[in-house]
Amino acid sequence: MSDTRPIGIFDSGVGGLTVVREVLRRLPHERVVYFGDTARVPYGTKSNRVVQSFAVQDTLFLLRHDVKMIVVACHTASSVALDHLTQLFRLPILGVVEPGVSAALKATRNNRVGIIGTRGTIHSKTYERLLKERRKEVTVVATACPLFVPLAEEGWLDGEVVRMVARIYLDSMIRGKVDSLILGCTHYPLLFPVIQEQMGSEVVLIDSAEEMAAGVEERLKKDGIENRNSGPPEHTFYVSDIPHQFREIGERFLGREMESVTQVDLESADLIHPAEIHDARVK
Amino acid sequence: MSDTRPIGIFDSGVGGLTVVREVLRRLPHERVVYFGDTARVPYGTKSNRVVQSFAVQDTLFLLRHDVKMIVVACHTASSVALDHLTQLFRLPILGVVEPGVSAALKATRNNRVGIIGTRGTIHSKTYERLLKERRKEVTVVATACPLFVPLAEEGWLDGEVVRMVARIYLDSMIRGKVDSLILGCTHYPLLFPVIQEQMGSEVVLIDSAEEMAAGVEERLKKDGIENRNSGPPEHTFYVSDIPHQFREIGERFLGREMESVTQVDLESADLIHPAEIHDARVK
Repeated sequence: MSDTRPIGIFDSGVGGLTVVREVLRRLPHERVVYFGDTARVPYGTKSNRVVQSFAVQDTLFLLRHDVKMIVVACHTASSVALDHLTQLFRLPILGVVEPGVSAALKATRNNRVGIIGTRGTIHSKTYERLLKERRKEVTVVATACPLFVPLAEEGWLDGEVVRMVARIYLDSMIRGKVDSLILGCTHYPLLFPVIQEQMGSEVVLIDSAEEMAAGVEERLKKDGIENRNSGPPEHTFYVSDIPHQFREIGERFLGREMESVTQVDLESADLIHPAEIHDARVK
Repeated sequence: MSDTRPIGIFDSGVGGLTVVREVLRRLPHERVVYFGDTARVPYGTKSNRVVQSFAVQDTLFLLRHDVKMIVVACHTASSVALDHLTQLFRLPILGVVEPGVSAALKATRNNRVGIIGTRGTIHSKTYERLLKERRKEVTVVATACPLFVPLAEEGWLDGEVVRMVARIYLDSMIRGKVDSLILGCTHYPLLFPVIQEQMGSEVVLIDSAEEMAAGVEERLKKDGIENRNSGPPEHTFYVSDIPHQFREIGERFLGREMESVTQVDLESADLIHPAEIHDARVK
């Protein structure tokens, strides 16, 4: 009656920890295994083919940890690789695009929705397509904001530079009169105040992490794979690199201390093949 | 009397094409095989251990193409992985740090030298150590400028944002009264005008690519491995990813058209082992 296997969550880096935070808040009995591909971050500037290949490797890595569900916390991977993953694998795989789209359609009053994200996400038109499928009278304004990620990672969350960059990137959103704006990248919630200031207080900013956690809960119930055990679950965090400022950035995203983080040897992570899923263990 | 094998040049991405340009200009008889690790770019934000592992894979890839020399065009890899590579491999391996240091020591009159680069490069203190080893009375001012790479890739080479970022990053250089400044990243020459404007016209900016090409020539002569064949050599370019704006950025760096670029399958590139060097061929 209780499925104690963990939920696997992956992202191109640490940004997906905002999704982990919401999942843990909403589902305190669930165990999480997280993988951040910090050695190959970012995904947002890379081709669909390469992101799909990375996403398969990330999924195979999590499958080694006997997960019951995969959450793709990365918007780029959700936009360009989710169909690929769901065609390949049997277990439930949830992306962040669908929850963001639902939240935006709930929020908008004038049916003018904005979406900002990486080049990969925007170029894929996945958000745009899904918004229009779900409500054909909606008008979508989409803009790639490539400098938002390095600004957030540099910790320049405030001040003249980020304001000026936000002004340039968000100009089309203001001219397009959107009344809800999807933050289509896990880094962007860090720039929430600057983006809100630029857009004006009436515009609803959609951070998909919260909506995502609700979607996870719903799916666990639907499939009858909730963890009903009490007792504090143990979460595990894996990354493919631990650069200097890793913990600092990671804890800013997660909103709490990271007890232990394990660096996965790239060689072994790269060498995972489907046949090994059930018998291999990461060093 | 003539060694027709190519020179192997690698970088984390397309930035190293500025080095290719200078090598081709200076050594028109030499063939070049280039590898840009565009699937895992950037290296500058990652740990030494991961960059060393990538650098070994990049070198092994070039060795498959029977190169006579390796040029590490990436400043981060040159700073944190060159010793590792020269300890592992027999063939001559040249980095970009040494030529930059020589040029700066030639240029400075007040013995106050600035160095800007990625976090990885600056954190390694490789430039600093080498400058002081070569001239102990030199004062070094070092600053990481993480936003310069995304700004250059975004094509924001001019205008208010890049000026403001340059003003913030270069403030310590101006206060430190450096009279020569090493551009310690292959992307930075694209920002040459903005950096020069900020530093003032008396400060000499050191772009290591030219000096690097001179170093390559010298080493080829010393080892007696020059290519004396006439006839136009054929160059080959490999990358691990071809994202949307690849050709545009690449040709901006190379300063001429790229005839053909081959995408290397990540899986096979990752699976290179020393034993395979001489019998394996990339798909």
